[in-house]
Amino acid sequence: MTEQYKIFETALQGADVGNPYTDIWLKAAFTDGADTVEVNGFYCGNGNYRVRFMPRRPGIWTAVTKSNDPQLNGIELRCECVPAGENNHGRVLPMNEVRPQSTVTLEDKFHFAYEDGTRFQPFGTTCYAWINQSREVQEETLETLKKAPFNKIRMCIFPKFYTYNTANPGSYAFEGNEADGFDFTRFNQGFWDNLEKRIAQLDELGIEADIILLHPYDKWGFSKMDRDTDVFYLRYAVDRLCHFKNVWWSLANEFDLMPWKTVEDWELYARVVMGRDSYGHLRSIHNCVALYDHTRPWITHVSIQRMDVYKTAENVNDWRRQYQKPIVVDECAYEGNINFGWGNITGEEMTRRFWEGCIRGGYLSHGEVYVQYDQIWWSHGGRLHGTCPERIAFLREVMADVPEGAAPLKLTAQNHEANWDVPCLCREDDNSYFLYYFGFFKPAFRTYELPEGCAYEIELLDTWDMAVTKLPGTYSGNIRVELPEKQYMAIRMKKA
Amino acid sequence: MTEQYKIFETALQGADVGNPYTDIWLKAAFTDGADTVEVNGFYCGNGNYRVRFMPRRPGIWTAVTKSNDPQLNGIELRCECVPAGENNHGRVLPMNEVRPQSTVTLEDKFHFAYEDGTRFQPFGTTCYAWINQSREVQEETLETLKKAPFNKIRMCIFPKFYTYNTANPGSYAFEGNEADGFDFTRFNQGFWDNLEKRIAQLDELGIEADIILLHPYDKWGFSKMDRDTDVFYLRYAVDRLCHFKNVWWSLANEFDLMPWKTVEDWELYARVVMGRDSYGHLRSIHNCVALYDHTRPWITHVSIQRMDVYKTAENVNDWRRQYQKPIVVDECAYEGNINFGWGNITGEEMTRRFWEGCIRGGYLSHGEVYVQYDQIWWSHGGRLHGTCPERIAFLREVMADVPEGAAPLKLTAQNHEANWDVPCLCREDDNSYFLYYFGFFKPAFRTYELPEGCAYEIELLDTWDMAVTKLPGTYSGNIRVELPEKQYMAIRMKKA
Repeated sequence: MTEQYKIFETALQGADVGNPYTDIWLKAAFTDGADTVEVNGFYCGNGNYRVRFMPRRPGIWTAVTKSNDPQLNGIELRCECVPAGENNHGRVLPMNEVRPQSTVTLEDKFHFAYEDGTRFQPFGTTCYAWINQSREVQEETLETLKKAPFNKIRMCIFPKFYTYNTANPGSYAFEGNEADGFDFTRFNQGFWDNLEKRIAQLDELGIEADIILLHPYDKWGFSKMDRDTDVFYLRYAVDRLCHFKNVWWSLANEFDLMPWKTVEDWELYARVVMGRDSYGHLRSIHNCVALYDHTRPWITHVSIQRMDVYKTAENVNDWRRQYQKPIVVDECAYEGNINFGWGNITGEEMTRRFWEGCIRGGYLSHGEVYVQYDQIWWSHGGRLHGTCPERIAFLREVMADVPEGAAPLKLTAQNHEANWDVPCLCREDDNSYFLYYFGFFKPAFRTYELPEGCAYEIELLDTWDMAVTKLPGTYSGNIRVELPEKQYMAIRMKKA
Repeated sequence: MTEQYKIFETALQGADVGNPYTDIWLKAAFTDGADTVEVNGFYCGNGNYRVRFMPRRPGIWTAVTKSNDPQLNGIELRCECVPAGENNHGRVLPMNEVRPQSTVTLEDKFHFAYEDGTRFQPFGTTCYAWINQSREVQEETLETLKKAPFNKIRMCIFPKFYTYNTANPGSYAFEGNEADGFDFTRFNQGFWDNLEKRIAQLDELGIEADIILLHPYDKWGFSKMDRDTDVFYLRYAVDRLCHFKNVWWSLANEFDLMPWKTVEDWELYARVVMGRDSYGHLRSIHNCVALYDHTRPWITHVSIQRMDVYKTAENVNDWRRQYQKPIVVDECAYEGNINFGWGNITGEEMTRRFWEGCIRGGYLSHGEVYVQYDQIWWSHGGRLHGTCPERIAFLREVMADVPEGAAPLKLTAQNHEANWDVPCLCREDDNSYFLYYFGFFKPAFRTYELPEGCAYEIELLDTWDMAVTKLPGTYSGNIRVELPEKQYMAIRMKKA
């Protein structure tokens, strides 16, 4: 019995001669009579093969294997799928792919939903190399994530060689090691088993694994494999991992720091990922300085690093306008005290950036780099030490309460004077909801001309102290709201 | 005896019939034998006329008046000019106009100097309507300015009608009042006498008067005079005021909020101002949203209002590149608690913007809008209540210590990695000086590869606590500087 959206897996025995990674192919087409899903099985050493399948609907799914290895060919598979349990909503997809056409609004294209229709608002974090740390640190990272507000994590498959990241990992995706070299035609099963275990554990925590397939921080050669090796690796990664409902594909981190890979390479790799992924998981490619062309159809959402040191998440509305896709600011700098400008902003500033992005209909990812600790969260995982995670938790609650269809207020000639300075997320269609965020402004009060015929309940949100204060009574007409002359305040109005 | 750069003035008696403001012209060409300076005299009511002249060189300057009024024609004038006293450096001009060609550097075009060659670094403030307040408030404003760090003030001639500014002033530039209407052909002498008194008092305090000739905040009609009336007014204003060495001409504040005036109007007005100004004072035109074309040759410096709510003074390097003139961010938002986004930033943020602009080779103006007081500094003057003025005083000291010729570090492929994040003002020609400003970053330390063969004294500047801490000894080679993990720090390195 396999739970809907979870993994059906069959172990098979086949050829153990030559190099099965390169020589043997194995497929199965699962059908429940209505739909058919073709999956690729994969080799996992010592003559062992596996076929995995994630059923998207309860019922009986059957398949017959096909392979160029007679031992693996013609095997009948049967997956009995039962309905999803609580907190199991399936994959995350662009909202406008999930929702029936009749309910798709103009705003849906900027957001995500689980495949069962439940809204998903990513609040990501970043632990690039956490699966390449010691077992103890990996366990500690999971413990931390259990209590943290994050529901997405950016993580690499290949180890990271970079400032504050110079140790070799315990194991690699390929067989071999730094001293003896790597066999780029054979995969290291221990590595992949652990990776999958971690992805499954993240799934248990409700965390999406935003898997970074390639990245430039390298001394081992994984960033400079040739095109065929890249494709060979990508196929294997996708064949194994695509069955996890919580997987997202990030083709690369800072792709532009690998100038030896061309746009043609990336486009090919995108086709490979799409071709091998039986489920159409989310796909993105992340920049350092130069943006990839995010209008490409294969890119499901814009995974962006802030383009400017000073103006970061405030650009979300421009990016929405430009790309017409969900905007995820996966790096807006990190809270911390590192000696680089990308990782030494305050918790206040980090929290402000989250708010500035969310209020504009975007999403962000967190990261933390306090260098006095053995593990630095942004890369190693471990523990969190910063001040912003609990504020992000507060923001996440606020955002969960935002009605669907809410969008950034459209500035017009009429409303410009009252709204040019303070961003607002609202339901303009029925005037039911307005959320204003004041950022670094500290006004003593603010006036509003409320929509005619509507009465509102008004709350003051102190986004730093994480306090919600309801103002007495209800409000209509021209009103003045007193504010505490503090930074990081918000005003929430809901139709009474 | 007239002190160099100060005002020689002669009172004359002439026609008192018809409308001398429109009917009578009066000129005098002063010469010391080498140079000739033509000035326009002006009418000041009751048959009184004055001729003013600001001698730019000691010696005997003589002139013979010319006028269409025989009484005013052919009068011999003699100005005996003695050398400038202490703290009298003459007009402020673009540095590259003042300095002998041989010493002009590429950086000079972005800066100012007094005409005697002394460097002038503007640290402005803004009291738009201070001369339109009660006498007591005007006196209080001057008292405040005496102790404040500002050496330039933006101020209007016409009164201001705007939020928090609804009272009528005691007198107007034109004869008349709101109830009875104005005579746009006759000037109110009491008003102009007071204005000149205030300009002279500012000069005594070493403060440049950045005179805003036209502005849109109006209920009396001064913003909607026709073109001929504008020209008539501008001629009179310039004829009277151009002799004050501390006058700058700001053609307009937020010119783009007067869309009924065309570019042709502004270009005409610029020609009028230049034509009547015997001394070539600084000229600018200030925007609200849309920039004027600051490449126009008559514009001596870019008087800019920040173009973006979030990224303000950090744009100075772009504007320098674009305009190749001094950049004065005359509005980067104001410290305060007003209910508008242009005036409720913290003292910290205001101070940060000053630093961000100065470190990039620009200049800024201050403003303050705390609405709980009867007088709000930005418009009325009165007293200062904010936290940034003393920090601006500290910055002014730091900037006065920056060697001339210092320029923003030029980012290159070679130095990019070490410098992309933190702006630096430095002398790259001889490596004698480096000033790094960390803004909202709070690094625990920073590493530097110091120029070969140089040893440096290093100071930590806490730009908020206004403390300078010299690190022991001198430094060379590859060094690491520990920092206190606070925002708003700077590092200053001087060749030992």
